[in-house]
Amino acid sequence: MATNGSVLESNVDVLIIGAGPAGMMAACWMAHCGVKARIIDKRNSKIFYGQADGLQSRSLEIFESFGFGDRAWNEANHLIEMCMWNPGPDGVIRRSDRIPDTIVGLSRFQECVLNQGRVERFFLDNIKKYSKGTLQVERAILPESLEVDASKVDDDSAHPVTVKLRHLSEEESTPQQQVNGSKVSDGLFRSSLVYEDDEEDLIRKSQSRAETSEIVHAKYVIGCDGARSWTRRSLGFELLGEATDFIWGVLDIIPITDFPDIRMRCAVHSAENGSLMVIPRENKLVRLYIQLKEVTPDASGRADRSKITPEIIFSAAQKIISPYKLSYEYCNWWTAYQIGQRVGTHFDAHERVFLAGDAVHTHSPKAGQGMNVSMQDTYNLGWKVGLVAKGIAKRSILSTYRSERQQVAQDLIDFDHRFSRLFSGKPAKDIMDAEGVSMEEFKNAFIKGNMFATGLSVNYGPSSIVTKPDTAVDEKANKGNHQGSAAVTRISADAYAKRQALAPGIPIGMRFDNVQVLNQSDGRPWHFQQKLKSDGRFRVILFAGDVLSAPQKNRVEKFCDALASPTSFLRAATPPSAPVDIVIEILTIHSSRRVETELLRDFPEILHPFDAHVGWDYDKVFVDDVSYHEGGGDAYFKYGIDRERGCVVAVRPDQYVGWIGELEDFEGLQEYFEGILVLNPKA
Amino acid sequence: MATNGSVLESNVDVLIIGAGPAGMMAACWMAHCGVKARIIDKRNSKIFYGQADGLQSRSLEIFESFGFGDRAWNEANHLIEMCMWNPGPDGVIRRSDRIPDTIVGLSRFQECVLNQGRVERFFLDNIKKYSKGTLQVERAILPESLEVDASKVDDDSAHPVTVKLRHLSEEESTPQQQVNGSKVSDGLFRSSLVYEDDEEDLIRKSQSRAETSEIVHAKYVIGCDGARSWTRRSLGFELLGEATDFIWGVLDIIPITDFPDIRMRCAVHSAENGSLMVIPRENKLVRLYIQLKEVTPDASGRADRSKITPEIIFSAAQKIISPYKLSYEYCNWWTAYQIGQRVGTHFDAHERVFLAGDAVHTHSPKAGQGMNVSMQDTYNLGWKVGLVAKGIAKRSILSTYRSERQQVAQDLIDFDHRFSRLFSGKPAKDIMDAEGVSMEEFKNAFIKGNMFATGLSVNYGPSSIVTKPDTAVDEKANKGNHQGSAAVTRISADAYAKRQALAPGIPIGMRFDNVQVLNQSDGRPWHFQQKLKSDGRFRVILFAGDVLSAPQKNRVEKFCDALASPTSFLRAATPPSAPVDIVIEILTIHSSRRVETELLRDFPEILHPFDAHVGWDYDKVFVDDVSYHEGGGDAYFKYGIDRERGCVVAVRPDQYVGWIGELEDFEGLQEYFEGILVLNPKA
Repeated sequence: MATNGSVLESNVDVLIIGAGPAGMMAACWMAHCGVKARIIDKRNSKIFYGQADGLQSRSLEIFESFGFGDRAWNEANHLIEMCMWNPGPDGVIRRSDRIPDTIVGLSRFQECVLNQGRVERFFLDNIKKYSKGTLQVERAILPESLEVDASKVDDDSAHPVTVKLRHLSEEESTPQQQVNGSKVSDGLFRSSLVYEDDEEDLIRKSQSRAETSEIVHAKYVIGCDGARSWTRRSLGFELLGEATDFIWGVLDIIPITDFPDIRMRCAVHSAENGSLMVIPRENKLVRLYIQLKEVTPDASGRADRSKITPEIIFSAAQKIISPYKLSYEYCNWWTAYQIGQRVGTHFDAHERVFLAGDAVHTHSPKAGQGMNVSMQDTYNLGWKVGLVAKGIAKRSILSTYRSERQQVAQDLIDFDHRFSRLFSGKPAKDIMDAEGVSMEEFKNAFIKGNMFATGLSVNYGPSSIVTKPDTAVDEKANKGNHQGSAAVTRISADAYAKRQALAPGIPIGMRFDNVQVLNQSDGRPWHFQQKLKSDGRFRVILFAGDVLSAPQKNRVEKFCDALASPTSFLRAATPPSAPVDIVIEILTIHSSRRVETELLRDFPEILHPFDAHVGWDYDKVFVDDVSYHEGGGDAYFKYGIDRERGCVVAVRPDQYVGWIGELEDFEGLQEYFEGILVLNPKA
Repeated sequence: MATNGSVLESNVDVLIIGAGPAGMMAACWMAHCGVKARIIDKRNSKIFYGQADGLQSRSLEIFESFGFGDRAWNEANHLIEMCMWNPGPDGVIRRSDRIPDTIVGLSRFQECVLNQGRVERFFLDNIKKYSKGTLQVERAILPESLEVDASKVDDDSAHPVTVKLRHLSEEESTPQQQVNGSKVSDGLFRSSLVYEDDEEDLIRKSQSRAETSEIVHAKYVIGCDGARSWTRRSLGFELLGEATDFIWGVLDIIPITDFPDIRMRCAVHSAENGSLMVIPRENKLVRLYIQLKEVTPDASGRADRSKITPEIIFSAAQKIISPYKLSYEYCNWWTAYQIGQRVGTHFDAHERVFLAGDAVHTHSPKAGQGMNVSMQDTYNLGWKVGLVAKGIAKRSILSTYRSERQQVAQDLIDFDHRFSRLFSGKPAKDIMDAEGVSMEEFKNAFIKGNMFATGLSVNYGPSSIVTKPDTAVDEKANKGNHQGSAAVTRISADAYAKRQALAPGIPIGMRFDNVQVLNQSDGRPWHFQQKLKSDGRFRVILFAGDVLSAPQKNRVEKFCDALASPTSFLRAATPPSAPVDIVIEILTIHSSRRVETELLRDFPEILHPFDAHVGWDYDKVFVDDVSYHEGGGDAYFKYGIDRERGCVVAVRPDQYVGWIGELEDFEGLQEYFEGILVLNPKA
């Protein structure tokens, strides 16, 4: 760190602007990958309540891969059923349907809800632990200017982004908060404050530099600074889209009510008074999304939010839920919003400054998607930036952020558009009521949307890190150069189909689905996904087949000989003195009987590397034992893999499937990694 | 706190001496019950390695009831299989058997292993959280004298135990540690140090008072100060028992070996070189228990431990495991011991000073019982002392500590006696070898002992808190006054048999077994045991049967009317202004179909109490839905309860079953609680 005149000046690999869930996720990757990074936020730490609360199955899988899935899962309220309430022929609301909230069997987790503040708490603890305290959110810091030196953007060692920061005074950094609407006050909701002592420290420190400036030179900047993103505006990019006339209010209360489904997720369409969504939360809380039919936009198309009070919102809720009674003593948080869907024109500048989360997509909150898609933006981006900054991966993979996440953002906007119009519409009185929304249509849209809402349907397109033909989606064969995806690995549709057929249950481009397997050496059952930690490593998963059959053992040995050779991608990705698995880890799932198989006798050493200090690695070979489940094993059956011959799968650091091939196709695997990694690095 | 001349003098409700697992468990109860307590230890915090490592299923259930079961379960190594290795006809060891390590289906948890230091860490964090930081281990404090004023022991408000304490200097409080036997040194095993900053603080504080004295007047003292217990000695009590000639060594190493079952729990009997037990641990560690045949006791019957080195122990291990090769670079800890079994003559003095853990039972460590039985001593004692100290329960329940735990200690000693002799004996060469140990007999003893080893077979005898006839175990009918159990509730063998027949799967005197149920209000599945938190509350579990049947609904309503009446034990246990469930919680499991049942409509309000601020309680009524599992529900079937008529079960704060009866037997239930609780307390 140097001083330029009186201004502090320093270099950093990655600067993250904004410490909401998207920024935290980016920082979490930096901590787990050991990247020199900073994360700043203009707010001090005084926002605790409200905001997002929905957590998808996929988000929980991601939390678990970092090591805090259990904290979120244990503390959150789990949504089991969705109840639909609609007007009967007499116009009075009644329950018309119960449907499972989450599609059963897709994930070990299901949709659940928890205050965003607690999610941020888990991130903070995890980032602190994995960065050994070196990476912590620096609050009350405002970015003032951002410049990218275009002449240096292709230089791997350069710090082409210059950001000027200002340290705020406490007054400047305390946001205006919603008035707490509780009728009693006893600190009941202070739980997210626990253990925040260290943040208080940080604030004190930043106060001591209040209103001073500093200059940061960054290799990469990630802007996660929300719907009104300063980063986006300073790059001159926009969000495009439209607002609607639908105005909604949100209340987090502990309801006192005789409505029988108050602890269920409910969609209530009243005959004349608008719609309401019930989201039961942790600690007796319930979030209500309430349509405000009596508030309308002005001539400019915008509603005057300053005229909306908790009383107006609550009174609308009472009308919708009538004839049931509703009151409350505790209100934790409230807000109001006008539904609109917008998506960013650009996701990055020069692949040096990236935008993520609300900075590139905004929509209505009712489907519980916002926090999830935002975190998954930076879950996609973080490891790429981290590995490139560390010199492990090529800069060219950075273009895949745009190609992969722009599509997801568009899908999200489309989903929200359909869903919120159906939800805000007045229910049709009968089949002849063409203006009203058919409740059957609403139910079907909900069931269809449920797959999207898990976060598990994301299927990334072809690129250097996802080996599928450019035609896989749009059937325009072999055109190459998919827009925004500069470096597609060329593969014919036929070759792709053959490869995918080796493991139809492991779709290339989707997240690696979970199965239960046993550790070969101690018989302990594991969810295999637990072995795909988010530590920045790629993984090659060798489905070794029946290693007790001589021809198959021969195939496995040949594959392992190639892996172990000095010219293999595995060796070439690692400095000579480093352990062989620091960039790519090899994991094995075989299909022989566990009790007839022995680790040291039946598996080549590259599958359980030897270390002079701690011996062989007993944690890399697993078995899909036929005797474990009656009628066959779990993994090979679920994935559709031949139990005798197996196959090889390459998995990205974010658990998405990049490549599948036969054991003989070592060259194809070598090519895959040569397209991604900087090989033969210096120690 | 007053000063008596220069000596600090203070009162405390409960003083715990010794901060090992037994002392921590006692402190944990005090934190969860809100009792004014102190816990002291003569050691400063510098012992991190070695010691106990086995965790039974029951211990994990207990940890979960306090809120840290997941931490232990996630971090521990799980033992899946036990492999038996014996000499073949050629004298060379080979695997003769694989048996499941833990009996399947008894518990959600199974036996696992984790360093004692981590277990203590979880306790410390939990105690700090639940006591809001007011209860923390005070280290480097030595008790110097203990006196009980016998004239005051029957006075509920008195502090009849006076203990003089001395604050030690750092030098005095640092125990002599085993030399670390690692050949490399890199801090690999420092993980249990994480987050211990606050303890360092405490030490600094106690140093500032080094070598000063203080006097503490306690209502109750719990001595958990180990096999050489100062508390026991100052009371003049003894451990009785015998030592054997068997000397064993223990090594915690990361082994480098071609022995194929090194990650399995193994019992290895060599032909001539003695026996070895392999316990695979967390973080690549393996604990080896190694018989030292070449070390023998001297004329006095004691082995000279100072002559035993890690080299001697390791060389014995190499011989036993031959022809497999064994070496290591990392040794974390080692020790040696002479097998002996001893049990205390007394478990308490005046029911004011109690002894627990190694202070009243010592034995060999190989069956992984020590830490568990010790923690379960104070898990039995802690809530009793806590509730009596708070004026909620009668002093008479304290006698049940002795009656309940003395039997367990004796069972433990007997188990260890049988097991260690079979394990230390030389294997029989053939069926004619009368001196050798039959390997078949060893295997059978192990399988039989496995039930005991889970900690789930404990069945407490009759007392004021366990309503069964004095004859239930020993068939001496109606003698009354079982030794050491002064206050037995009288019940005839016939009446007992009828009551037990209402729920044969819920044995009175045993821990309440787990089932999965759904919350009536939100459909969320729960392990019902998760609802039996260790918070000091008794629970009445109403198996309400089929509440949609009119006659049964009538029975439920009558029972609830009695519960809600001003003279019921439930109301009488609680000060008028306090919530009705602070001493006894009512939980309901019904057997009607969930979707046809409604909480507010079908259940009397006492089952889901109303609070003016937060409405009805949605977390007390559960359903054993017939549609949930094919062919019938889980709970009623498993417990053998009539699905139509149900029954009522009273459960102690430690999850043990105290009473069972029909819904009509409200009077019996009232009597049960009148025998235990101080009713009609002042606010």
